[in-house]
Amino acid sequence: MHLSGVLAPIPTPFDEHDRADTTRLRRALAKWLERPLTGFVVLGSTGEAVLVDDLDADRIIVAAREVVPADRHFIVGTGRESTQATIRATKRAAEHGADAVLVRTPGFFKPQMTSDAFVRHYAAVADASPVPVLLYNFTAMTGVNLLPAAVTTLASHPNIVGMKESGGDVAQIADLVAATPDDFMVLAGTATTFYPALCVGAVGGILAPACVVADACARVFELTRAGRHEEAQRQQRELVPLSRLLGPTYGVPGLKAALNLVGYDVGVPRPPLAPVPEAAVGVLRDALARFEEIPA
Amino acid sequence: MHLSGVLAPIPTPFDEHDRADTTRLRRALAKWLERPLTGFVVLGSTGEAVLVDDLDADRIIVAAREVVPADRHFIVGTGRESTQATIRATKRAAEHGADAVLVRTPGFFKPQMTSDAFVRHYAAVADASPVPVLLYNFTAMTGVNLLPAAVTTLASHPNIVGMKESGGDVAQIADLVAATPDDFMVLAGTATTFYPALCVGAVGGILAPACVVADACARVFELTRAGRHEEAQRQQRELVPLSRLLGPTYGVPGLKAALNLVGYDVGVPRPPLAPVPEAAVGVLRDALARFEEIPA
Amino acid sequence: MHLSGVLAPIPTPFDEHDRADTTRLRRALAKWLERPLTGFVVLGSTGEAVLVDDLDADRIIVAAREVVPADRHFIVGTGRESTQATIRATKRAAEHGADAVLVRTPGFFKPQMTSDAFVRHYAAVADASPVPVLLYNFTAMTGVNLLPAAVTTLASHPNIVGMKESGGDVAQIADLVAATPDDFMVLAGTATTFYPALCVGAVGGILAPACVVADACARVFELTRAGRHEEAQRQQRELVPLSRLLGPTYGVPGLKAALNLVGYDVGVPRPPLAPVPEAAVGVLRDALARFEEIPA
Amino acid sequence: MHLSGVLAPIPTPFDEHDRADTTRLRRALAKWLERPLTGFVVLGSTGEAVLVDDLDADRIIVAAREVVPADRHFIVGTGRESTQATIRATKRAAEHGADAVLVRTPGFFKPQMTSDAFVRHYAAVADASPVPVLLYNFTAMTGVNLLPAAVTTLASHPNIVGMKESGGDVAQIADLVAATPDDFMVLAGTATTFYPALCVGAVGGILAPACVVADACARVFELTRAGRHEEAQRQQRELVPLSRLLGPTYGVPGLKAALNLVGYDVGVPRPPLAPVPEAAVGVLRDALARFEEIPA
Repeated sequence: MHLSGVLAPIPTPFDEHDRADTTRLRRALAKWLERPLTGFVVLGSTGEAVLVDDLDADRIIVAAREVVPADRHFIVGTGRESTQATIRATKRAAEHGADAVLVRTPGFFKPQMTSDAFVRHYAAVADASPVPVLLYNFTAMTGVNLLPAAVTTLASHPNIVGMKESGGDVAQIADLVAATPDDFMVLAGTATTFYPALCVGAVGGILAPACVVADACARVFELTRAGRHEEAQRQQRELVPLSRLLGPTYGVPGLKAALNLVGYDVGVPRPPLAPVPEAAVGVLRDALARFEEIPA
Repeated sequence: MHLSGVLAPIPTPFDEHDRADTTRLRRALAKWLERPLTGFVVLGSTGEAVLVDDLDADRIIVAAREVVPADRHFIVGTGRESTQATIRATKRAAEHGADAVLVRTPGFFKPQMTSDAFVRHYAAVADASPVPVLLYNFTAMTGVNLLPAAVTTLASHPNIVGMKESGGDVAQIADLVAATPDDFMVLAGTATTFYPALCVGAVGGILAPACVVADACARVFELTRAGRHEEAQRQQRELVPLSRLLGPTYGVPGLKAALNLVGYDVGVPRPPLAPVPEAAVGVLRDALARFEEIPA
Repeated sequence: MHLSGVLAPIPTPFDEHDRADTTRLRRALAKWLERPLTGFVVLGSTGEAVLVDDLDADRIIVAAREVVPADRHFIVGTGRESTQATIRATKRAAEHGADAVLVRTPGFFKPQMTSDAFVRHYAAVADASPVPVLLYNFTAMTGVNLLPAAVTTLASHPNIVGMKESGGDVAQIADLVAATPDDFMVLAGTATTFYPALCVGAVGGILAPACVVADACARVFELTRAGRHEEAQRQQRELVPLSRLLGPTYGVPGLKAALNLVGYDVGVPRPPLAPVPEAAVGVLRDALARFEEIPA
Repeated sequence: MHLSGVLAPIPTPFDEHDRADTTRLRRALAKWLERPLTGFVVLGSTGEAVLVDDLDADRIIVAAREVVPADRHFIVGTGRESTQATIRATKRAAEHGADAVLVRTPGFFKPQMTSDAFVRHYAAVADASPVPVLLYNFTAMTGVNLLPAAVTTLASHPNIVGMKESGGDVAQIADLVAATPDDFMVLAGTATTFYPALCVGAVGGILAPACVVADACARVFELTRAGRHEEAQRQQRELVPLSRLLGPTYGVPGLKAALNLVGYDVGVPRPPLAPVPEAAVGVLRDALARFEEIPA
């Protein structure tokens, strides 16, 4: 498995009765397949995984797997707070056809989530997983930080092949690249710093804005790889305002609103999340209008 | 329902095969019933609720309810990240005999967890709950803060009767008391500031150290209520070092180690939590030796 | 020297040409002498000390000393970033008649401001000071925290007699009281938690709102000392909204605006501080109207 | 004035009697002139400016100016907490020959240090300054953040020509570049992210490690400018461990120790700063041994 380029962490459609809607999911995925995306993550943070129970998770994985062809990476988020629940979710995802799993750090018992705890947790998951494991650090949501020292240790596990780092701290991405072997894949999780992350050694990105503006994200990747840094920097700069809106400002509700605006029909977020207010829809529409790939 | 005094948020025993152990739970509860505790919380943060799946949760609630008599409060933690899962857990807890539920704030999607989101979430849960609802704010673990403004709104719901505030910020407890009607019960969740929390209007506490040193905790409460502030302050001071060890320093693993030291047999924490190291057991033993209520 | 009760950390009047105005200072002090204040701090944080150069500091100290009689405590803020500048300022303050000095922690080189550094700094200052020294911790402004461990060490110095703790963390005040001898005076620096601070052992407070509502502050102190806790708590509650406005919300500019509203004529803050906007003056006027001691 | 490349923010030598030592300063500067540095900053944060009084500041500026030739940039740090003191220091620095001044944000009254306050402060300083002004944001030390919105406004002032951003947040540097005209010079202040900062548009750096390993820093700059990104990234990676030691780990005392190890004789830091312990000297010696430019 070699990940590179831009992957989309897709949202989970819910209908107006707060049910996971696999019909909408299949339709949206069919559209995403037309974009320059090297793969998909279902049930990541953007997929509202923490709001989805295990039965629905199975339905979502099965439905998505049927649509995604073998030449695209199909990755499933399976992080849970307990090690045993993470292993159970990982095995089910593998049974249902996941190419790899993306395992968010547990984060509730913050003072106890030391590097030692993370190493034990991930080693147990990787030992039990039938498919390759990607580490996943998202400090802004979990409140804990998977540090390069722990990642160095875990990178030597034969079934741990890479990591998604969703922090915008480029120095930490540089540290992760420096602290791991060349074949360990560090993937950026923040679109606002995608270009500098690639500069310091990230091999690609799993980027929420890629659900909406895949071309723009892919261009940052291709230009950087081609050594056309000035253009990459310029393209990155155009990506920043929308990335802010879909990240810290409006989050998953903003992403769903943006996707609905451009014809993906992904429904509403699950409570306690709520649709963004009407004013935010206007702000998003204006930000989207600046991208050529989006039809007026 | 009128809560006051000291309630114990009890841990969930797990056996050496990482299974919830209801036999140990019943035995420990029988011992706790001999202590000056006005009630019990099962499946709170201290009960490692985030590491327990729904099937086990049911078994734990049923087992505990059978042991706890009607003259003690029996409260079940039912907070989940999604509103619908919280409602389901709440209904099951009520069916199994909970007197009330303690509902921790959702906290994953931090930027979206505004006062509005909390009000919608808790109102939906309280509307659906067959038993009274207690709000539960534990910023150190969730990374979000349920502010007095939201609590004021929620306090007017007929089925929301009180709140556990686990932050050590006495000013926030004073604000909560000031911002809610007299019959809304604010309970302290931090033993290190139990006495000043009572001074500013908390009606009692749900305190992890009360699982170990119930007498000392109850004495702080009784002395303060009797207006014997100097003595209350002195008693509080003796409580602080152990409370630190069982809270920020060693957390739930520390509490389980302490309980095992004093004869409660509550097993080990669930991975990724791990038992405290041997050195910590020594530190805990020394801290416990200072309490008369604990037999040498 | 025995400090107790309520002291006022008075602001420094500046005129419209950005000059320290000792005439206004004398007049305002004459009015403050009529209030139930046990002493005064000049050139504390509230006195905009960091915006005042050494020549002006001397003028301000001399002018204030002439007005304050011997039966009120007269304390001068002399904290500087370097140890040698702090010693120079301390000696000058003593020459000009300070009864004691209040020495804010240095705070610029945050990672180096360890307990060791604080112990060295304060010991050198106390060795050189002709008058008693009060430690001063104000984490919200300095970004560093003078911890109880360091204070324990420093409390054994014969010339270090007490401490002002301006953090609202009541647990830290309780820790400071517990960690120091009985004759070491811990003074609260935050009016919003004055009553609980007294509960856990503070001997008094140096409180910015006391410049405006001295009676209300003094009443909290007297009621608590008399064991009338319910009334003290009620009085404290009335103090909170104004204390918030004069603290975190509007700061020194808010205090100056409030004082000007009630007839103290203390001029404007020094740039880069600016007078509060007109809307804030209205908010302050409303908050002040709730205090009987302020004439309508 | 066009700044680019690598500038050194030099430390201020103090002798064993805690006096500023201009003889040592001249000698050290003579050595630095042999390195590939495009300019020097005296009395910046690294120069312990907050520990130096105005008389000593004048002596230091005069001494340094005499040594630095006209073809190197000579910049003086003149930030103070009050606007009027900053203007006075700025005028004196200009009289003594500064080519430009570097003005750190005031930071004591944190809640009041809004973008408005910064705009007023810097505009007043720039209006009064005989030489160009560089803004200077160092959130880790000041606790305040000069945001891109304020910088955009200030960049239109004819006498404000650039900015040193000492935060390691590459996204903020990218924002500053995007938010200002092309001729506004953004300089990186953190060596650990120098290369990615250059990628996103910084024109150079004012880097404490450049006092010790100027060649290595200059190489990162030259390689990036030449489009040799792989090599620049590799060179950057070698710079990181030492930069961490001279920054967050040991700070100015660490820089002085390192310089003394490689023959610069810059004395000791001023109290309350203290020399690093012996063990740190060993760590620094090992880190320095990895740089070819340092003679064994």
